[in-house]
Amino acid sequence: MEIGRTARKRRAILRAATEVFLQNGYLGASMDQVAARAAVSKQTVYKQFEDKERLFAEIILGTNDQLVGGFVQAADQLDGATDARQALREVARGFIEILTQPDVIRLRRLVMAEADRFPDLSGAWFERGFHRSLVVLGEAMQGLADRGVLRDLPDPTLAAYQFAGLIMYKPMNQVMFAGTLAKPPVDELERIADEAVKVFLAAYDGDHT
Amino acid sequence: MEIGRTARKRRAILRAATEVFLQNGYLGASMDQVAARAAVSKQTVYKQFEDKERLFAEIILGTNDQLVGGFVQAADQLDGATDARQALREVARGFIEILTQPDVIRLRRLVMAEADRFPDLSGAWFERGFHRSLVVLGEAMQGLADRGVLRDLPDPTLAAYQFAGLIMYKPMNQVMFAGTLAKPPVDELERIADEAVKVFLAAYDGDHT
Repeated sequence: MEIGRTARKRRAILRAATEVFLQNGYLGASMDQVAARAAVSKQTVYKQFEDKERLFAEIILGTNDQLVGGFVQAADQLDGATDARQALREVARGFIEILTQPDVIRLRRLVMAEADRFPDLSGAWFERGFHRSLVVLGEAMQGLADRGVLRDLPDPTLAAYQFAGLIMYKPMNQVMFAGTLAKPPVDELERIADEAVKVFLAAYDGDHT
Repeated sequence: MEIGRTARKRRAILRAATEVFLQNGYLGASMDQVAARAAVSKQTVYKQFEDKERLFAEIILGTNDQLVGGFVQAADQLDGATDARQALREVARGFIEILTQPDVIRLRRLVMAEADRFPDLSGAWFERGFHRSLVVLGEAMQGLADRGVLRDLPDPTLAAYQFAGLIMYKPMNQVMFAGTLAKPPVDELERIADEAVKVFLAAYDGDHT
């Protein structure tokens, strides 16, 4: 019972802190605001999370782990696929869906904004999250290559980055720069994904070897 | 003489303000700090730039125009080119060089961080800068297609985004997320650029039509 209450408080603090950081940035956020928003005492916040930096790290890395989970699931769609075009389209759509969620965009901005203040944290976001997702995608692509569905991949991780870049470069920059609400309409996103798959397969389709 | 002095003060204020914004973010920056750093009176800062928001906009859009100039110059290398591979490699290297300059990275972070607070300004950065650079690159690619060096491009601007995404997705995310100093070594950047050109030409090389 006591444990359940502690866990609930912890979740409430994390939710509240996410909103406070997103609204005010790292420097502008205070533990007072977090406590007020979570309806707990400031003492409780400190007891659970030590200090503002630790709280920030928990939020960033927790969200990061969730995002990686989504990507791994998307990449799983390549397992056992025999139609490269169709499977890659599904992955492309999964990527777009995960990465253009408004809360993800806002959190990415926050991590980037603080990258030079907290290089260990933002480095962990990149290595444990971003890069790891693309290593996993590269491995799934290598699986396709092993079965002859794609041609041999000299560098599966780089191929995964190329695929993600073909898909995400336009919509991601648009939402990151022009504002969260600048997300392109669904039919444009689908066209970008389809054209990305075409270019990728022109280079890597197993049929062409 | 008076005009020269005003112009010098203006430049000093812009330089000082850039540093103050980069160090403290938009909310954390004050006109007092800018005046002190530029060694002028606060009155002079207000006389020249009206308010903090206007000063911020001048810096962002001024840098943006400079960046576009660099991209247009890089894209110009496609004019009259007959060897698509070599010309595109040059463009790719130009892109990497412009976009991974530490000050450009820091300013990109600042624009992104404030994108939802100043959607007009960040929207202008995207439209007048980022997107315009890629439209220009697409036009230069269309020039190659017209001369048969590339195959016909159904959507030259999208092809330009694909090319930029193949090149920039890995190094840009690395420096933006992991920190300005996370810039990959030159030989890795060159390998990424060369592999990007290979994938792009697999889809768009005029020789294959």
